[in-house]
Amino acid sequence: MPRSPEDLRGLVEEHLEGLELWPHLHGQAESVRYSITVGGKRVRPVICLATAEAAGAEPERALAAGCALELVHTFSLVHDDLPALDDDEERRGQPSTWKQYGEAVGILAGDALLAEAFRLAASYDTPRVARELAGSTLGMIGGQYLDITGTAPDEATLHRLKTGCLFEAAVGLALWVAEVPEAEQAPWRAFGAELGLLFQIVDDILDGDGYVVTHGVDGARRLADEAADRARTRLGEVAADTSVLREVVDSLAVRTA
Amino acid sequence: MPRSPEDLRGLVEEHLEGLELWPHLHGQAESVRYSITVGGKRVRPVICLATAEAAGAEPERALAAGCALELVHTFSLVHDDLPALDDDEERRGQPSTWKQYGEAVGILAGDALLAEAFRLAASYDTPRVARELAGSTLGMIGGQYLDITGTAPDEATLHRLKTGCLFEAAVGLALWVAEVPEAEQAPWRAFGAELGLLFQIVDDILDGDGYVVTHGVDGARRLADEAADRARTRLGEVAADTSVLREVVDSLAVRTA
Repeated sequence: MPRSPEDLRGLVEEHLEGLELWPHLHGQAESVRYSITVGGKRVRPVICLATAEAAGAEPERALAAGCALELVHTFSLVHDDLPALDDDEERRGQPSTWKQYGEAVGILAGDALLAEAFRLAASYDTPRVARELAGSTLGMIGGQYLDITGTAPDEATLHRLKTGCLFEAAVGLALWVAEVPEAEQAPWRAFGAELGLLFQIVDDILDGDGYVVTHGVDGARRLADEAADRARTRLGEVAADTSVLREVVDSLAVRTA
Repeated sequence: MPRSPEDLRGLVEEHLEGLELWPHLHGQAESVRYSITVGGKRVRPVICLATAEAAGAEPERALAAGCALELVHTFSLVHDDLPALDDDEERRGQPSTWKQYGEAVGILAGDALLAEAFRLAASYDTPRVARELAGSTLGMIGGQYLDITGTAPDEATLHRLKTGCLFEAAVGLALWVAEVPEAEQAPWRAFGAELGLLFQIVDDILDGDGYVVTHGVDGARRLADEAADRARTRLGEVAADTSVLREVVDSLAVRTA
């Protein structure tokens, strides 16, 4: 009986809380821990664990990979919030990391989160986990650059990089952990791409920007439903029990926060 | 006939120039390349390549690892120079990255350098290269934190973290590349630690701070000579042709820039 998304999220929270962090971080560890515990839905690690389990691995084996993704995501938020970028003083109702610890420590906290993420990703016997994490992180940073400079060729490219890369990696990292041969990864990865798109469109619907501006609320809703349908179709192409991942699709499609 | 430090440096420069960078970086690649080409002595990658060759590998095999170290070093300079940290507008006589491209792009350039470094480190079959790079990067960031917050327990700890970690990694990464068994790595690694200390003390002598403040010029000079001697002793404990590494020690001990 595969674990529910709620169970997997519990595993992730526990692992994040128990993270020892690198002892050499000294006092820097406090701001890193603060950034992590300010929370979030842990969507990416839950997808990673659920994919690993669907692909035949114990979800616990994917904890380091899933948490690495969450740390990369957190790093991106910590640096995004800086005065030179989005200048956000709050994150999820609490002071953003730089607001709490000052700008210098905020910058270093993001750096440490990224390095800690790679430490986790490199803890596997295969280098493929760290390799894919590096590639998707670079894609995300590239998207961030297009965003702040207003130079994105189009909205789809921007979102594929800024959001899509880490969602695809949530699936991709799990495939390496579960030792799914590269030749069999295509439908799984296509699923990850649709999931990223779905997440982004629903985000825009909740925030009233992005796809809502270009397609209207109804248009964006339709695009979201289509992405969810394609995600389900992709799951159908995989010879595995993907019921939990289907649940994730359903909840991402109707989420209100 | 092992390659000279100058030859190895040429290899490194060529590899850095030819670095394709991640295509998804888009326009962000320009500031990353700028940061890399502002230059430097490439000390860490040269040590990495020379160690690899002394340990029996083709130095070319260590290029990705050595360049990864150089990118981590460059990342640290790019973020150090930011207004919130050291607020340096120049780096080696040219505008620092943030001064040239603005603060937001400067922050992202550092992030991209770090992620690119891990992409290179994860290109090996063994995950040990990426694993050690992550650990030493975290140590360096921890040292940076102690420095900007003025909370270092003592000078030795500060320097071991800020400078020593990457020098030890220059040796350590090469050992993994050359497949030196863990049980035989101790003298090599002790050599790397002495090299980092030597580099730091000479740096302080050239800048007139740090060890010069606490020990005077003559005292610092003596400490540097002792570190160089210990480094040579460690090399003597290794059953390999370490003549090039000995040359590196000699030139680090007497460098004037």
